[in-house]
Amino acid sequence: MSRYWSDVVSRLTPYVPGEQPRIADLVKLNTNESPYGPSPKVLQAIREATADTLRLYPDPEAEQVKLAVAARFGVAAQQVFVGNGSDEVLAFAFIGLLRHQQAILFPDITYSFYPVYCALFGVEFVTVPLTDAFGIRIDDYLRPNGGVIFPNPNAPTGCPVAVADIERLLARNRDSVVVIDEAYVDFGGESSVRLIERYPNLLVVHTLSKSRSLAGLRVGYAIGNADLIEALERVKNSFNSYPLDRLAIAGAVAALEDAEHFEKTRRAIIGSREKLVQDLKKLGMTVLPSTANFVLARHPGRDGAELARALRERNILVRHFSEPRIDQYLRITVGTDAQCAALIGALRGILA
Amino acid sequence: MSRYWSDVVSRLTPYVPGEQPRIADLVKLNTNESPYGPSPKVLQAIREATADTLRLYPDPEAEQVKLAVAARFGVAAQQVFVGNGSDEVLAFAFIGLLRHQQAILFPDITYSFYPVYCALFGVEFVTVPLTDAFGIRIDDYLRPNGGVIFPNPNAPTGCPVAVADIERLLARNRDSVVVIDEAYVDFGGESSVRLIERYPNLLVVHTLSKSRSLAGLRVGYAIGNADLIEALERVKNSFNSYPLDRLAIAGAVAALEDAEHFEKTRRAIIGSREKLVQDLKKLGMTVLPSTANFVLARHPGRDGAELARALRERNILVRHFSEPRIDQYLRITVGTDAQCAALIGALRGILA
Repeated sequence: MSRYWSDVVSRLTPYVPGEQPRIADLVKLNTNESPYGPSPKVLQAIREATADTLRLYPDPEAEQVKLAVAARFGVAAQQVFVGNGSDEVLAFAFIGLLRHQQAILFPDITYSFYPVYCALFGVEFVTVPLTDAFGIRIDDYLRPNGGVIFPNPNAPTGCPVAVADIERLLARNRDSVVVIDEAYVDFGGESSVRLIERYPNLLVVHTLSKSRSLAGLRVGYAIGNADLIEALERVKNSFNSYPLDRLAIAGAVAALEDAEHFEKTRRAIIGSREKLVQDLKKLGMTVLPSTANFVLARHPGRDGAELARALRERNILVRHFSEPRIDQYLRITVGTDAQCAALIGALRGILA
Repeated sequence: MSRYWSDVVSRLTPYVPGEQPRIADLVKLNTNESPYGPSPKVLQAIREATADTLRLYPDPEAEQVKLAVAARFGVAAQQVFVGNGSDEVLAFAFIGLLRHQQAILFPDITYSFYPVYCALFGVEFVTVPLTDAFGIRIDDYLRPNGGVIFPNPNAPTGCPVAVADIERLLARNRDSVVVIDEAYVDFGGESSVRLIERYPNLLVVHTLSKSRSLAGLRVGYAIGNADLIEALERVKNSFNSYPLDRLAIAGAVAALEDAEHFEKTRRAIIGSREKLVQDLKKLGMTVLPSTANFVLARHPGRDGAELARALRERNILVRHFSEPRIDQYLRITVGTDAQCAALIGALRGILA
């Protein structure tokens, strides 16, 4: 606290990401990264861009990335916004599309960055409780609001919402923007992108950090009506002209174009998840139904924080949130089959 | 304009960067990039970081970059903030350190992004006219304010302010933050970094885009009291946990450590500038005294916009601003000697 700080700084409670420790031989299942590396074509594209041309500014519009997204989803480049990770895309949506007179709505248990953006940009919000089964009930969102945002599947629960339900929300919520944060949609969820043509107030946000194995490259994007995209562009161009460097642009294009690597790795993760869920249940754990690359699980007889600590002592990192309702749960990223087996083995030892 | 936009979006007049055309054989002297590529050690470091580890998030603190900056300037890592280009660092300073009840002060002719940040973050400002000789007169800033910001050397004039003058401002302006934007300081200017120990309200901002030949990599940083740095960290962690990707971190560290390449290229640019200034004067042009990697110059008998257009027809790009007071000037980036000679040759033809 300092007299030089703006008022807003003292009011902030910054987001705390999962730790990135520099310990060898760690089974790192705490930040929902892919256990598989990016496509070799991505590495090749980055190597080719690693040249004297780094002295020149990148394309401020990252047009090549927009075209690659547009090609993949059958939309126009004008319907695509690109940012420095989906966190930056979300930040711009909060300031440009979700800040109105009325409070926005999001679930009580969800991505914990949402209330942080609200504090930074002065966005009023009301949280809507998940059901007892940790589901998002669309009817609870059918009320006056300045905007709606939730991840699908939700995080950190992993539980999906059917696109038919999202369409029902959109059909009855025409006056504010609905942001669907699909960071984890590629692991068995259903995307809402096809609804953008019918609903000019729908913004769908994606990231290359999870299903494209590029958390280290920082690329995210949004798809929506050109009108919504223009709002994001105006905010971006009032904040930072060049959010994506030349290497990120080159790598992102190659990643979006390599459908084969994408399919292979996401299917492997989905397979590992199904086995992991069965194995956790065999240990007596309760596991929420997940279509993400992580699961939220608890043991009826053991404290969540304690379990996380015990796993850490065995060099296995999972994430524990000390929030109400989920403080007995562990959020476990789906690793390779071998990593999942290591986790199950360690848990078996701890629970014995 | 759309009913879904936040109020602020409609009020924004986004910054317009210099164009990045995709034309071969262009003499590109419009965006103050270095004519020399980055250090080979930078390219090597990036190639080594181009690996499977891109699946993992980068260090959210970019600690290695902070340590490299700290080592170069003899400060502590806690006195360093790192961002996605100095534009992002400046944005965080506007929201975290310059937004107060009172209006901030900056020159009437300066980096045109400053009023754009003010519009986005709701920062009141008053512009202070440069002198008739386009200089910053410190006495004009000795009045109540919510903060002061200017580049040193100033942009787009290139004119420097003596550090003794900046210290005089700091000594008499203890109640608000003074941000010195030293994007161009390495081309013959004098840095204010050594003043941070004595003045807890001084923030100095640097970029790797110009003197480190890395406009394409997007890395900037700020040096100041740990207290000011903490404000920037709090804003950053409420906006985007991981603004720098793994490749930018690796490249930035290598760039900051290669003093030899840095010295060689910046000296070459300083030498080319001195020759360019003489050659422009021989053509009858007026050139403002510059310690930057660009010069602001006009011809007494020819319209500035017309000259810029005529150069463009000859495949030479310079920047023209249609603002009052400087609308008859051209901002010319210092290129290699050969690029400068091409510019001079073209100008000679146009003026003949």
